[in-house]
Amino acid sequence: MSSYFEVSEYQSRLDRATDRCRDAEIDALLVTPGPDLRYLVGYHAHAMERLTCLIVSANGPHRLILPTLERETALASPISELDIELITWEETEDPFRLTASVLLNAKQVAVEDRMWAVKAFHLRTNMPNAEQIPAGPVLAELRMVKSAAEIVELQAAGAAIDRVHAMVPDFLQVGRTEREVATLIAEAIAIEHEQADFVIVAAGPNSASPHHLPSDRVITHGDVVVVDIGGTTQTGYCSDSTRTYSMGEPSANFANDYAELLDAQQRATASVKPGVTCESIDAVARTALTGADLGDLFVHRIGHGIGLETHEEPYMVAGNTRPLEPGHAFSIEPGFYRAGSAGARIEDIVVCGPDGPILCNDRPRELLVVDTGDNT
Amino acid sequence: MSSYFEVSEYQSRLDRATDRCRDAEIDALLVTPGPDLRYLVGYHAHAMERLTCLIVSANGPHRLILPTLERETALASPISELDIELITWEETEDPFRLTASVLLNAKQVAVEDRMWAVKAFHLRTNMPNAEQIPAGPVLAELRMVKSAAEIVELQAAGAAIDRVHAMVPDFLQVGRTEREVATLIAEAIAIEHEQADFVIVAAGPNSASPHHLPSDRVITHGDVVVVDIGGTTQTGYCSDSTRTYSMGEPSANFANDYAELLDAQQRATASVKPGVTCESIDAVARTALTGADLGDLFVHRIGHGIGLETHEEPYMVAGNTRPLEPGHAFSIEPGFYRAGSAGARIEDIVVCGPDGPILCNDRPRELLVVDTGDNT
Repeated sequence: MSSYFEVSEYQSRLDRATDRCRDAEIDALLVTPGPDLRYLVGYHAHAMERLTCLIVSANGPHRLILPTLERETALASPISELDIELITWEETEDPFRLTASVLLNAKQVAVEDRMWAVKAFHLRTNMPNAEQIPAGPVLAELRMVKSAAEIVELQAAGAAIDRVHAMVPDFLQVGRTEREVATLIAEAIAIEHEQADFVIVAAGPNSASPHHLPSDRVITHGDVVVVDIGGTTQTGYCSDSTRTYSMGEPSANFANDYAELLDAQQRATASVKPGVTCESIDAVARTALTGADLGDLFVHRIGHGIGLETHEEPYMVAGNTRPLEPGHAFSIEPGFYRAGSAGARIEDIVVCGPDGPILCNDRPRELLVVDTGDNT
Repeated sequence: MSSYFEVSEYQSRLDRATDRCRDAEIDALLVTPGPDLRYLVGYHAHAMERLTCLIVSANGPHRLILPTLERETALASPISELDIELITWEETEDPFRLTASVLLNAKQVAVEDRMWAVKAFHLRTNMPNAEQIPAGPVLAELRMVKSAAEIVELQAAGAAIDRVHAMVPDFLQVGRTEREVATLIAEAIAIEHEQADFVIVAAGPNSASPHHLPSDRVITHGDVVVVDIGGTTQTGYCSDSTRTYSMGEPSANFANDYAELLDAQQRATASVKPGVTCESIDAVARTALTGADLGDLFVHRIGHGIGLETHEEPYMVAGNTRPLEPGHAFSIEPGFYRAGSAGARIEDIVVCGPDGPILCNDRPRELLVVDTGDNT
């Protein structure tokens, strides 16, 4: 399996980015290794202190500044088939000065959001007459609308994390620590994807901390366990899915609250269609949970976009009035968190289709009761 | 095993960072999740779009700006025992404005090197009177001199990657692709560390590309295979080690070149002691390889510092006249790369001790011949 899409898809992305630069009077986009670089030209380079920088030029040739020792690797990517001039630098040269030398007349450059600040500072020092602005607004508009090929990749990532969640009941054993379970899950994610990105295993009262890091807490009978996990596949697309498990039968109160959460999550998912706003997806679940007296315990937004990054545009949060478009891909993950007691979250990745939601996950969403062998 | 050092070690780091800010007339250090944050306060937070920012203040209280939903996680780190005020923000608040509001009179702020450019831009917009400078020069001086506890962690990371290299001859089988071998290695790294960071498996002519990414090339009898791998342990410390393997007996010419490389690597390692310059470590190996007519094929610097990042200060490169100090930790990794034919590299992590080098790796450095069963 190749790690890349057709070259024509990258060419189209580059062309659209160039058009957007012209419209916004941006002379060049400056893109260092990371998701934006992978998106534009398919080059999955390791982010490091040595400068690699794609210069997407509004009115001239596109160029890639890179260390000589990365040249062969870059040429093994779609870059070799795109119209991009390679400019290499040796170990004792100053690559920031080199970058500035090909952008002598630039007045406004857009810097990729995730560029390391120190690199932006060095570029600024070498290009004092070029105003730096964030490239996010230019690139996010492209990246947030997924192509058909990208939706296939998000579904493959979703299937991969579903296979991991299918193993979780076997990993969750009374007597194991959160950390031990997290290690087993991380290994499974790496096998099913290409790399594990994050593993939240939050047991007992820890389940009430939305972003709890795995600790040495021992899992015991009666614990609720929130398992929020994700990885990145070989093609760079991310998964992110949460299921909540119960070590033995849950209390009636918790089961009731969970049923309300599931209802809210399903209502929010069903409301996905082109034209509804991002904030409305959040509001649908929040209204349902507020009606069940759980609204105050739903302490985070309902979701975030996903693609080559786990979190990207569009964000499903109050205040975001952007209307959904076909191809928008995002999480729907309401939760409730009762401090000192327990919490729960249910998360799927959903793509806005032409007529409604397209689901990327299909594991059961009900509270999954793990048999602990303890019937007391 | 705890993921943290003693609280007194973090307190000492914070105090030294504060002193350096005062000396440099920096009002505050701004540090988002990443290695600098982990170094200063032991908080290993996930880098994401939501702003978490430690404000190390030269003349006031230290503060941590963070999303409310990260509060419990932050308090599970040494932060709860350090004198740091937590300031939380809700999902619909503007955290950049909040950060600016506690730095009203700041004239100069030092921004952590790896902060995402977009966050630095948002901070600049909200603090137009504060000049932003890179924090690297302040923090690198602290981070590059490893404490006794850190050296123990680097040795543990070295032992972990040594255990993986011990498995590599079993993974390297004729008929497998580079990618298949890389997957097996990545799984082993994740098990022996906490996460795999990178895997270079460069077989045959690909061994002549220093940063080759694993491809679908099938490993064949007669291939030289450069395996450069690293991971991060639970405490955050990185490993990085390269060994070169030969699928069956190598050619006499290659074996001769390799012997020269090993000699150069050993000479460079033996030259490590306090007071010699970083560039001299590079020069020792370069001189030896030049004497063996391999100097032109040694196309990269000899090494980089290592600690909470795989690549950090100090860099062992021509032009770096910094004298080594006890506690400096770095790679020594000369190589030669004959385009279209084969390459080789040998890499160890070395700490400068009071009297000479302290090695973090101890796998054999000789060319490791893998029996392919092919004696033709």
